[in-house]
Amino acid sequence: MCGIFGIAGHPEAAALVHLGLYSLQHRGQESAGIVAVSAEDGARPLRTMGLVSEGFTESALQEMRGEIGIGHTRYSTAGTSTIENAQPVLARFRGGHIALAHNGNLTNATELRRELEDAGSIFASTMDSEVVVHRLARAEDADPAKALAAALQGVEGAFCLLVVLGDTMLAARDPRGWRPLVMGMLGDAVVFASETCALDIVGATVVREIEPGEIVSVRNGEIVSHTFARSPSLHRCVFEYVYFARPDSSVFGGSVDRARRALGRQLAREAPAPNADFVFSVPDSSNSAALGFSEQSGLPYELALIRNHYIGRTFIQPTQSGRDAKVKVKYNAVRELLNGKSVVMVDDSIVRGTTTRGLVALIRAAGAREVHMRVSSPPITGPCYYGIDTPTREELVAANMTVDEIGEHIGVDSLAYLTLEGMLAAPPGGPGGFCHACFSGDYPTPPPADPDKLRFGCGC
Amino acid sequence: MCGIFGIAGHPEAAALVHLGLYSLQHRGQESAGIVAVSAEDGARPLRTMGLVSEGFTESALQEMRGEIGIGHTRYSTAGTSTIENAQPVLARFRGGHIALAHNGNLTNATELRRELEDAGSIFASTMDSEVVVHRLARAEDADPAKALAAALQGVEGAFCLLVVLGDTMLAARDPRGWRPLVMGMLGDAVVFASETCALDIVGATVVREIEPGEIVSVRNGEIVSHTFARSPSLHRCVFEYVYFARPDSSVFGGSVDRARRALGRQLAREAPAPNADFVFSVPDSSNSAALGFSEQSGLPYELALIRNHYIGRTFIQPTQSGRDAKVKVKYNAVRELLNGKSVVMVDDSIVRGTTTRGLVALIRAAGAREVHMRVSSPPITGPCYYGIDTPTREELVAANMTVDEIGEHIGVDSLAYLTLEGMLAAPPGGPGGFCHACFSGDYPTPPPADPDKLRFGCGC
Amino acid sequence: MCGIFGIAGHPEAAALVHLGLYSLQHRGQESAGIVAVSAEDGARPLRTMGLVSEGFTESALQEMRGEIGIGHTRYSTAGTSTIENAQPVLARFRGGHIALAHNGNLTNATELRRELEDAGSIFASTMDSEVVVHRLARAEDADPAKALAAALQGVEGAFCLLVVLGDTMLAARDPRGWRPLVMGMLGDAVVFASETCALDIVGATVVREIEPGEIVSVRNGEIVSHTFARSPSLHRCVFEYVYFARPDSSVFGGSVDRARRALGRQLAREAPAPNADFVFSVPDSSNSAALGFSEQSGLPYELALIRNHYIGRTFIQPTQSGRDAKVKVKYNAVRELLNGKSVVMVDDSIVRGTTTRGLVALIRAAGAREVHMRVSSPPITGPCYYGIDTPTREELVAANMTVDEIGEHIGVDSLAYLTLEGMLAAPPGGPGGFCHACFSGDYPTPPPADPDKLRFGCGC
Amino acid sequence: MCGIFGIAGHPEAAALVHLGLYSLQHRGQESAGIVAVSAEDGARPLRTMGLVSEGFTESALQEMRGEIGIGHTRYSTAGTSTIENAQPVLARFRGGHIALAHNGNLTNATELRRELEDAGSIFASTMDSEVVVHRLARAEDADPAKALAAALQGVEGAFCLLVVLGDTMLAARDPRGWRPLVMGMLGDAVVFASETCALDIVGATVVREIEPGEIVSVRNGEIVSHTFARSPSLHRCVFEYVYFARPDSSVFGGSVDRARRALGRQLAREAPAPNADFVFSVPDSSNSAALGFSEQSGLPYELALIRNHYIGRTFIQPTQSGRDAKVKVKYNAVRELLNGKSVVMVDDSIVRGTTTRGLVALIRAAGAREVHMRVSSPPITGPCYYGIDTPTREELVAANMTVDEIGEHIGVDSLAYLTLEGMLAAPPGGPGGFCHACFSGDYPTPPPADPDKLRFGCGC
Repeated sequence: MCGIFGIAGHPEAAALVHLGLYSLQHRGQESAGIVAVSAEDGARPLRTMGLVSEGFTESALQEMRGEIGIGHTRYSTAGTSTIENAQPVLARFRGGHIALAHNGNLTNATELRRELEDAGSIFASTMDSEVVVHRLARAEDADPAKALAAALQGVEGAFCLLVVLGDTMLAARDPRGWRPLVMGMLGDAVVFASETCALDIVGATVVREIEPGEIVSVRNGEIVSHTFARSPSLHRCVFEYVYFARPDSSVFGGSVDRARRALGRQLAREAPAPNADFVFSVPDSSNSAALGFSEQSGLPYELALIRNHYIGRTFIQPTQSGRDAKVKVKYNAVRELLNGKSVVMVDDSIVRGTTTRGLVALIRAAGAREVHMRVSSPPITGPCYYGIDTPTREELVAANMTVDEIGEHIGVDSLAYLTLEGMLAAPPGGPGGFCHACFSGDYPTPPPADPDKLRFGCGC
Repeated sequence: MCGIFGIAGHPEAAALVHLGLYSLQHRGQESAGIVAVSAEDGARPLRTMGLVSEGFTESALQEMRGEIGIGHTRYSTAGTSTIENAQPVLARFRGGHIALAHNGNLTNATELRRELEDAGSIFASTMDSEVVVHRLARAEDADPAKALAAALQGVEGAFCLLVVLGDTMLAARDPRGWRPLVMGMLGDAVVFASETCALDIVGATVVREIEPGEIVSVRNGEIVSHTFARSPSLHRCVFEYVYFARPDSSVFGGSVDRARRALGRQLAREAPAPNADFVFSVPDSSNSAALGFSEQSGLPYELALIRNHYIGRTFIQPTQSGRDAKVKVKYNAVRELLNGKSVVMVDDSIVRGTTTRGLVALIRAAGAREVHMRVSSPPITGPCYYGIDTPTREELVAANMTVDEIGEHIGVDSLAYLTLEGMLAAPPGGPGGFCHACFSGDYPTPPPADPDKLRFGCGC
Repeated sequence: MCGIFGIAGHPEAAALVHLGLYSLQHRGQESAGIVAVSAEDGARPLRTMGLVSEGFTESALQEMRGEIGIGHTRYSTAGTSTIENAQPVLARFRGGHIALAHNGNLTNATELRRELEDAGSIFASTMDSEVVVHRLARAEDADPAKALAAALQGVEGAFCLLVVLGDTMLAARDPRGWRPLVMGMLGDAVVFASETCALDIVGATVVREIEPGEIVSVRNGEIVSHTFARSPSLHRCVFEYVYFARPDSSVFGGSVDRARRALGRQLAREAPAPNADFVFSVPDSSNSAALGFSEQSGLPYELALIRNHYIGRTFIQPTQSGRDAKVKVKYNAVRELLNGKSVVMVDDSIVRGTTTRGLVALIRAAGAREVHMRVSSPPITGPCYYGIDTPTREELVAANMTVDEIGEHIGVDSLAYLTLEGMLAAPPGGPGGFCHACFSGDYPTPPPADPDKLRFGCGC
Repeated sequence: MCGIFGIAGHPEAAALVHLGLYSLQHRGQESAGIVAVSAEDGARPLRTMGLVSEGFTESALQEMRGEIGIGHTRYSTAGTSTIENAQPVLARFRGGHIALAHNGNLTNATELRRELEDAGSIFASTMDSEVVVHRLARAEDADPAKALAAALQGVEGAFCLLVVLGDTMLAARDPRGWRPLVMGMLGDAVVFASETCALDIVGATVVREIEPGEIVSVRNGEIVSHTFARSPSLHRCVFEYVYFARPDSSVFGGSVDRARRALGRQLAREAPAPNADFVFSVPDSSNSAALGFSEQSGLPYELALIRNHYIGRTFIQPTQSGRDAKVKVKYNAVRELLNGKSVVMVDDSIVRGTTTRGLVALIRAAGAREVHMRVSSPPITGPCYYGIDTPTREELVAANMTVDEIGEHIGVDSLAYLTLEGMLAAPPGGPGGFCHACFSGDYPTPPPADPDKLRFGCGC
């Protein structure tokens, strides 16, 4: 996954992009980057592996002059974890520079890349996003928005894009609207971000979402909207509500916190645990859902699992004694609460099942008598081709076991998932217009041509 | 503040100390260190500035052989932030090596140091802890526990100590019992830690607290208890319950989570906010207290403030636009919850008031109609001389303003603190035996001789 | 300037490239890089800013599998000092991967880039070398050598190239032969390097130079020679003999040490200093020339200047007392030798004059009575467009002062440069076929279109 | 070995110490340190592992205020390579601070340490130098020079010391005068350094050597000389002339360059090689001696071995192909010079023989017909207990083989060492007053008590 942020028309553009990326760090922790554009210095890139808070020095940021800036936080799989794949992409072409930041995943990138290669293009990275840069460079229209519209013809899949062409900033969202992208204002400056929490941090006010199939261009303070494509149907990623977005954000026009509360309430309706003593969450992503479960069920909400936030990304595991150390170093259970109790543990999803299994063991070791697990989304049975870094089908526990088998595998007394209908009914605005392919198998596009999606492609 | 951890009788001692320090990181993030002792290699130190998760390489840890290990996490003020002051202290003397890790603060270290200097001792650091090492080296008894008992005669103030003398591990706690120290077992190995959460992470079971005035010695699996001093009174730090310890720990024999819940309930009794719409916490340290307030008052508990855990320790602030950026980069408010509401914000304490003021501004910017702040401890009116890194009296907002003035200063509609009696009644086991000097001015010892406590002294 | 090294047909290709780059470090210290190519893993890049000895970890090198490898050391000016500009370039195209390492400078890169941009190409770096990669990707011939020949049609300027296309390694040298490139054998493996000293370090034997206008291709052990262009004239850089190459190397078929000795002898013939007491060199690059001067003149050779090799690249200068500290930290004079003497100081060239002036002051401070400077090349009056990083004309002391003025400026009693004829007569093989544009103004090509050559271009 | 530098009475003391250490880097590359002392800030330490040019930041240096500063460069063996052992030592005692920098090795440190430990001292490092600090802290005289004189009573072995006690700087040299120490003036400031090259770099003028058995104290510009001990005999380290000191330095009152020239001339007299074609040195330490050999013998001096100065301290060796790579990466031979020739290779000493053997192989591989090795000192048959880091007797090739065997082992046609008498006659001032224990076995003190000298001890 990725987070993108852009600002046009502010003298401290790069500093604000930097600040905005702090708020989008949850969308990607592998690498981060900023491109700033000024009339004098042109476009300057700054990229780092790792966290926004660690990779940039103050002196490097101060050299990033200009009133236009875009930034990117990226998560990707190990195979392609190199600085070459950090975004924003910055390239020079006949029209000057192109800077591009992408959230999403193009499903026909392999085909598009082959076409470009046949026309003589060379590729500096293994990211699908690079095909859009090439297509932009080859677009014949001098108008940036028209050039981007032309470049996006035939591009399939999920994309929210921030592009700088010369002194024009462009924001685009694919016709099915998979990923969120919001526009705000900070004084006279125009701001774009994956989530509203990044507008909050810079003090910008939310104006509206970028529409599916829309390009918004900003140049010298003038904001123009263009429609580059229409889709028969909307496929906004429901997993943004379930897990991915921050609870203080509003995405697709709805509050994430409110959506998760509704998921939790619905879960309590569908799968109550009437005899339990209390309910608790796997912090922090499931806090809202667990609170919703508590609210609906009347069971008290307790803080039975504590998360350690000082872990860092590389954990050195002791050889013998360290089994389960990875889970233990991240979570601990509150014995005084759990001892002798029948409890409901709410989590937003189960992917491989490994962490969940460790957590259940932790809960039981702290004395819990009965563990009833409730999941605020349906079983994940297929990979996501639209930007979420789900593992292959072989690794997805729910693609290989029944719910009962999973319950036994992770060691709970009962296990229940939210239904597809229940999940889709929860977010504000009604059940329509969501992509739920990883839960339902109902993929709105053909899968990518390349069988090994993790090697090639993936701007996010 | 500091966290200490030790293990004796385990082939992977250093690896387990490392793991234990992960769980004590909240007690000190400035530096961390490990000393491992083996019959072949003697005592080897490994120290780093910064976090446990960042400073040690796997290869360095693997060279830390031996069945005995102690470790330390340290927080201290800027003036003495150097690797020389990272603990454990390791020194050589006629008896071999002394390794020592200290949590607390000695109030007569200046006098003790002067005595030692008069006898010809030299000091390699500015830590008060070093006086104990010198006194140990000068102790005449060959028996390690007796030598430590002798060394501690006349030492005033707060100390939990882990010491390795030769192949003997010693754990000691000052007679007033200011800081927590617990003993556990992992198979045949004996484990000591500041908090039980560190026993949990290595899989050890809790045996008991080290008693005030007790030394426990461990050698070749034999555990012996000694009493080196008796105190007329117990002065356990109540702030460990209020803020410092982790909620999944048990300190002084009581659950931190349960104590905080009781503080929150008491706060709701003493200072209700009957017309508010809901209550929320300043995460994460106040979650339990806010939940207690909700439980007692019947007001719903909401997640209205979201904390960003990806910030790191150095934050590069934009020049113009960045006012309040420090608070905003750490916290964000959930507009959809707060807009138009009258709310209760629960925090565990107010120190300088700067962060609180920024938070209230954030809450109001998100649309809150009324903000009622409730604090789950009394106003802090004096510095701590016993290990907590409170600022000087000049910087303590409650030492310089009345409660009403503070309320106005931070911009709330109402502000109430818990009473001293209310706070002391909350922890399990009754109100007696606590140090509450920073709240009440009732200091059980004279203040340290050195006026500038931050320069000299402070093992923690 | 740059150094390039390649090997094909050896199981430890990357390790040997790494070793070879140690010997080419004098040709560029700004960045270094290696690309290794294996049938299984494809092409992998590894790049670093700074020195070969500092930037690569053993584990990273061990992951560089494959029997083909090329490497590059690069020096460039500050403006473009980024990891994006570190070579080898690695790109993907319809035919797979292209890896390219370049020594030299293309004089029509701006025009070639414009053509490519008009055809839709995008550029990831600011290096002139990237145009060759694009032209290769667009070449229609499937045969790698023919594709490279086609790509090089119309490319003007100085280039020695090492290219990997699929499993074929290619070495090419521009028709005028500006830069050296030599081929050797290590068992059955074929090795290419800028200088023979890099063949020595890996234990390879010298076979021959790559001819101007020649492409050598190596695939599965088969070595084939192709001629892609013929030039009416040879323009080998005489400055390689004067200063740039290592004295233990043979370039353009002649020994650098022997050439420098001949330059020194010729200098003594042209500009003797009969009454001097002895001659000494500015170490280490002028040692051979000073020895030649001594040999011819009969003056004793002394070690009057000592160079400190522990300086590193960033020197922190004290504020007040540190004037001339930069020269003093690098060189010191031997007072016991110099005191009261009339001496001849031999250097290979004077660029800005700043260092020379500092050295003369040092020599005088050590007591020298008379300082006669002799330079083993003519005055440098113009920039180099073919790969040497000379400063702009404004900074070249000899472009702005007469020899007498320079002598006065640097503070010597007499100053003499070698004549152009004298310099060209020195290298083995006779005076013909050299480029001496920076001395004579006789540029064999038009200067690059871009006035600011330091911004754009410069693969070296 | 170590280098020491101090300055008293200059507003930029630390910056000048830093500059001076650049010139003493050849005396120790393992760690470096500076202590600056000001009336306001007291004594501040700054230490680093590795080189002077790499370890200190400009901002850290700027915080080192005060008019007094001392510094140290240290080489030591792997076992004790930690930051704890970096000097200067800085300790606090009843009188304030003690800062100490030591060059040399105390031969009775074990006994002195035991005495101190018996009196209750603890040791923070494994350096012998720390005993002097303890003895100073225990000295009863308030006068710094008298205190130092008292502290040095009974201290055996080699020491040049720079000490700061309060605002007094002290320089001391052991009665036998093993190591050099010189005093200079920079304006009104007093400067001390191991070698005169460090006075040159800061622009100070040489005043005189510190005498054996002398303490010089400097306070508020007043310079006072004290005699703390007299020795029946002088034992200045002749190896300083042979190898250790820089050729541009004057040590023990004589020019190192001139001494080495005389060693080379004497070598040519004792062991000529009349039929050889030329003579060359192993650069850079043997350049002077080889030039002396050339001068005396009439054989031409050639630059047949080239040294690569870009190697760094960690060299990653390829597995199969890399045999001898360590020598090859550091040196290369000039084939055009050596091919078919009979040559004389001059080196200053042979320690283990490994490098020499590699060099001879290199020379032969470059085509040399005959290799005659001449060594400008006698065979090293025993370890040094006075500061030079010679390996154990087992590793010294000349302690285990005859000269003929060594010649065969390293693969030369003839091998000759300088005689003891020849060596002692070379330095200016006559043959008396030198320590030649490592050559002759004539140790002026008993060896240190601790059999494993590399573990304990060694301030240098």
